[in-house]
Amino acid sequence: MKNLMAVFILLTFLSCNHSTIDKKAEGEKLMQLSKEWSQAAATGDVEKTVAYWAENAVMFSAAHEPLNGKQAIRQMVEESFKIPGFKISWQPSQVEVCESGDMAYILEDAQILLTDSSGKPIVINNKAVTIWRRQADGSWKNVVDISTPKP
Amino acid sequence: MKNLMAVFILLTFLSCNHSTIDKKAEGEKLMQLSKEWSQAAATGDVEKTVAYWAENAVMFSAAHEPLNGKQAIRQMVEESFKIPGFKISWQPSQVEVCESGDMAYILEDAQILLTDSSGKPIVINNKAVTIWRRQADGSWKNVVDISTPKP
Repeated sequence: MKNLMAVFILLTFLSCNHSTIDKKAEGEKLMQLSKEWSQAAATGDVEKTVAYWAENAVMFSAAHEPLNGKQAIRQMVEESFKIPGFKISWQPSQVEVCESGDMAYILEDAQILLTDSSGKPIVINNKAVTIWRRQADGSWKNVVDISTPKP
Repeated sequence: MKNLMAVFILLTFLSCNHSTIDKKAEGEKLMQLSKEWSQAAATGDVEKTVAYWAENAVMFSAAHEPLNGKQAIRQMVEESFKIPGFKISWQPSQVEVCESGDMAYILEDAQILLTDSSGKPIVINNKAVTIWRRQADGSWKNVVDISTPKP
């Protein structure tokens, strides 16, 4: 009977361990990823910036038509980086990871700087929500990216 | 040895079965929930409308300051329903549920109708993303609600 209990405990551990996720660690990883992404975007490097989106990512913003897929997003990024005085940055404020650790979301505050035709700086303040899926290799990619202007 | 295998199979089943989620069924439930919510909002009934948000829900829109918590959202709903000609409706287009079935998101297209001071109707078209958490009783509640105007 003692042996049976030992087998029970061992097998329970072995059979379920694959789904054990350190949600706190994954959440910290995502907060860090959001900060790194903001830094990458600030450099104006298209390849570094688009690397965070999944192939099937969608992006919604008041600044452009809904974008479906990484190729459409890449084109928007290229065009944005050519706008005079364009600079985007953001700060994550909260992250939530699901129990199985394959889906998460981050709340962010974003700032976009532009220069108007007279050279005058314009600041746009956005609230943003990004949704992430964990990939087969354990990395996280952004699948939904939506931002809305603060009134 | 045969008995041990039987014990292994049984215990593996018992120990992991609790995490088995019918993602497809939960996704269909959420699409239905989004449609029901839109119908509830169309009636102008505040209580029915706010019932879909979790107590800690946040809401971001270009139409108002960021809202934290159901009480702030309820106040915005009450004020919106008093706007002349106000009517909101939306259609869900896509749902994704995480493996453990405790987090999901829906992509939606929303329309807001208003009447300006001269009585002329105004239509605002929004893209919206709603994030949902499954509660202890199995019901889903909205925790993040963000919409952005289509340009």
